Amino acid sequence: MITAVDVVDVRFPTSHRLDGSDAMNPDPDYSAAYVVLHADDGREGHGFTFTIGRGNDLCCAAIETLSEYVVGTDVHGPADLGALYLRLTRDSQIRWLGPEKGVMHLAAAALVNAAWDLASRRAGLPLWKYLSSLTPEEIVGCVDWRYLSDALTPEAALDLLRAAEPGKAERIAEIEARGYPAYTTSPGWLGYDDEKVVALAREAVAQGYKQIKLKVGADLEDDRRRFAAARAAVGPDIRIAVDANQRWDVDQAVDWTKALAEFDPWWIEEPTSPDDVLGHAAIRERVAPIKVATGEHVHNRVMFKQLLQAGAIDFLQMDAARVAGVNENLAILLLAKHFDVPVCPHAGGVGLCELVCHLSMFDYTSVSATMEDRVIEYVDHLHEHFTAPTVIRDGRYAAPAAPGFSAEMKWESLQRFAYPNGPEWREHA
Amino acid sequence: MITAVDVVDVRFPTSHRLDGSDAMNPDPDYSAAYVVLHADDGREGHGFTFTIGRGNDLCCAAIETLSEYVVGTDVHGPADLGALYLRLTRDSQIRWLGPEKGVMHLAAAALVNAAWDLASRRAGLPLWKYLSSLTPEEIVGCVDWRYLSDALTPEAALDLLRAAEPGKAERIAEIEARGYPAYTTSPGWLGYDDEKVVALAREAVAQGYKQIKLKVGADLEDDRRRFAAARAAVGPDIRIAVDANQRWDVDQAVDWTKALAEFDPWWIEEPTSPDDVLGHAAIRERVAPIKVATGEHVHNRVMFKQLLQAGAIDFLQMDAARVAGVNENLAILLLAKHFDVPVCPHAGGVGLCELVCHLSMFDYTSVSATMEDRVIEYVDHLHEHFTAPTVIRDGRYAAPAAPGFSAEMKWESLQRFAYPNGPEWREHA
Repeated sequence: MITAVDVVDVRFPTSHRLDGSDAMNPDPDYSAAYVVLHADDGREGHGFTFTIGRGNDLCCAAIETLSEYVVGTDVHGPADLGALYLRLTRDSQIRWLGPEKGVMHLAAAALVNAAWDLASRRAGLPLWKYLSSLTPEEIVGCVDWRYLSDALTPEAALDLLRAAEPGKAERIAEIEARGYPAYTTSPGWLGYDDEKVVALAREAVAQGYKQIKLKVGADLEDDRRRFAAARAAVGPDIRIAVDANQRWDVDQAVDWTKALAEFDPWWIEEPTSPDDVLGHAAIRERVAPIKVATGEHVHNRVMFKQLLQAGAIDFLQMDAARVAGVNENLAILLLAKHFDVPVCPHAGGVGLCELVCHLSMFDYTSVSATMEDRVIEYVDHLHEHFTAPTVIRDGRYAAPAAPGFSAEMKWESLQRFAYPNGPEWREHA
Repeated sequence: MITAVDVVDVRFPTSHRLDGSDAMNPDPDYSAAYVVLHADDGREGHGFTFTIGRGNDLCCAAIETLSEYVVGTDVHGPADLGALYLRLTRDSQIRWLGPEKGVMHLAAAALVNAAWDLASRRAGLPLWKYLSSLTPEEIVGCVDWRYLSDALTPEAALDLLRAAEPGKAERIAEIEARGYPAYTTSPGWLGYDDEKVVALAREAVAQGYKQIKLKVGADLEDDRRRFAAARAAVGPDIRIAVDANQRWDVDQAVDWTKALAEFDPWWIEEPTSPDDVLGHAAIRERVAPIKVATGEHVHNRVMFKQLLQAGAIDFLQMDAARVAGVNENLAILLLAKHFDVPVCPHAGGVGLCELVCHLSMFDYTSVSATMEDRVIEYVDHLHEHFTAPTVIRDGRYAAPAAPGFSAEMKWESLQRFAYPNGPEWREHA
């Protein structure tokens, strides 16, 4: 039984180096609303949601509010995990604050992820293998099907999962042997000068990456110059994605993207508001054959459903901790499979790489059964704070081997960067 | 200058009488995250956002967080009000928690509404007349046009407002003389038995209402029986709207609505998820000629833009305190006018009637210039707590005459219902 929930507001002062800077987020302090579930068998479950600073305390407070649905219950298997997820997202009074969006939904993500961490530790498996061990019926039972049936029914989802059963053991072995392809955003932060972009782009290629990403959207001439320099540095065969971080209206997105076309962008990411399904669809139609990607700020499965129904995206960028954790991401993986859209997760921040690779690996073993055109974002920030950090080999995520969801931060890091009273912040103040 | 911001968590124990009960919200405790701005000229600005209980404390905490953008500034006219609104919605770190949705956006609504209350008190005008006194350029300058230009540009909005200038003085006089049409939801809460529904429906007609609303969606046979009884009680000429409060998937919404068609529903409200633009569009197409209404949970102008672009709604139900207050509602009124969709605001809760009638009255004087098929919801709850409560005469909202936004609650009510330490809650505990 889960007997206690600890919550930590942990923030890293990333803003002073312009790591993570983009057209909408000039000075992020990468942060986590971090939660530890304590069970009476001595087990723990770790989870978090990611923010970029101010308001992280509100996510922590929201987790405290939702903790009443966790303490006194337990999560021994998928049925428990499905029931907990519904309790965390369906309280009618709390639902009024959304529904299923914003601070409350971020808080639910932290708790749901911590519960899956606990359950997969108990099973002695890394989360991706724990998910891969579940039956199609168990996976379908973890999803909240409300509002999805016009696109995908539970019965049709069962058929998708059953069709992916053959070859699963081989795909698990392949993941363990070779990992999963990554791309890197480390060269492309908007605050970096051209020289740094070029050096980091070359370094990425030398490290084995086949795709990198550049931030764009603040100034067109700057973007063209940086993109030209990066393209010259890596050559024509490396894919370069560009990311506008929601900066544009529809017409502006089309014009700006076309003005970058000569440098062969692989996708344009977040060209406009993450809420704008119809805007993304219009942009995609008008910038083809350049592809459109979005998802890190898409707040729930109903929005992803519509992006897919409207043909608004070429790549679906799931985030491990914006929707309500593993359960909602299972729904999103099934929707993406049904609409045949590759999932290329958002990562970076703090700990998002550690989490989301589990979901892509499960997608390969048990849902899409392909890695074609699929890559997981990688950013080389802040991994040193985790007990089982992401390992990249030759441009690929190595398969996590430790039991759980890889969410656990080191105790020293939680202490040092606790906000506002950890020593790192007391020194800043 | 605004020197201080007070925040009060005020909750009314409405759940014990089933007032406000519907298919998704069985036991709401109507609540407000209430804010008072104190200016150094002795003036105050009152505002709030509405919730149904748990989580109201988080909205209060979010208001405290956002207060740093308010204290030390001032709001003497529309330019100040436009600038404050942008400061409250564009902090890049806080924006990450949405953007523009959930707890943070509800908090912004409370502060923005309080700022407009302060500015219109200083002008000595009720908000609807203050808004009506602004020039088209001033109104357009209060709107955040980001993400709207594919539907409506500032220039086109200026044209709409200029076209509505002739006759404004006459329309202001008409509002002052005759008010604005209302409909009432008081008969239709799901927790009421048939006898109470029939008695209250008859009473509503006797009071002059031309439209009432019933809650539906929990049990089809119950809905048919209650609707038949209400229809028999009021006759064929009174419009009866039905409201499912987001209970259904798309197919279920269509089937259920058609199963009520014989009782002549005027509109079906919130048939599915408020996030589901495409779902609403599909339902509308399939249940025609029954009309579709939504909006009380639509979280920002980008979502309203899409509902209008997709032809998903026959009536737009703006809410005074879910989007970021007056400024964002100005954008929504302009979009509705551009797409020629009538605005029939959501009200009820606590204080929403007091607020939203100002926006409909401004819509009449200065934007749509018509009341055709337009009605404001009215519910006879909790008005006794306001210093300038809504007055209904012969089924119409009387024009507020006191300076400000009618948001101010009585001091005794704030004290008595403060949560959790007011005497009303100490008695409950």
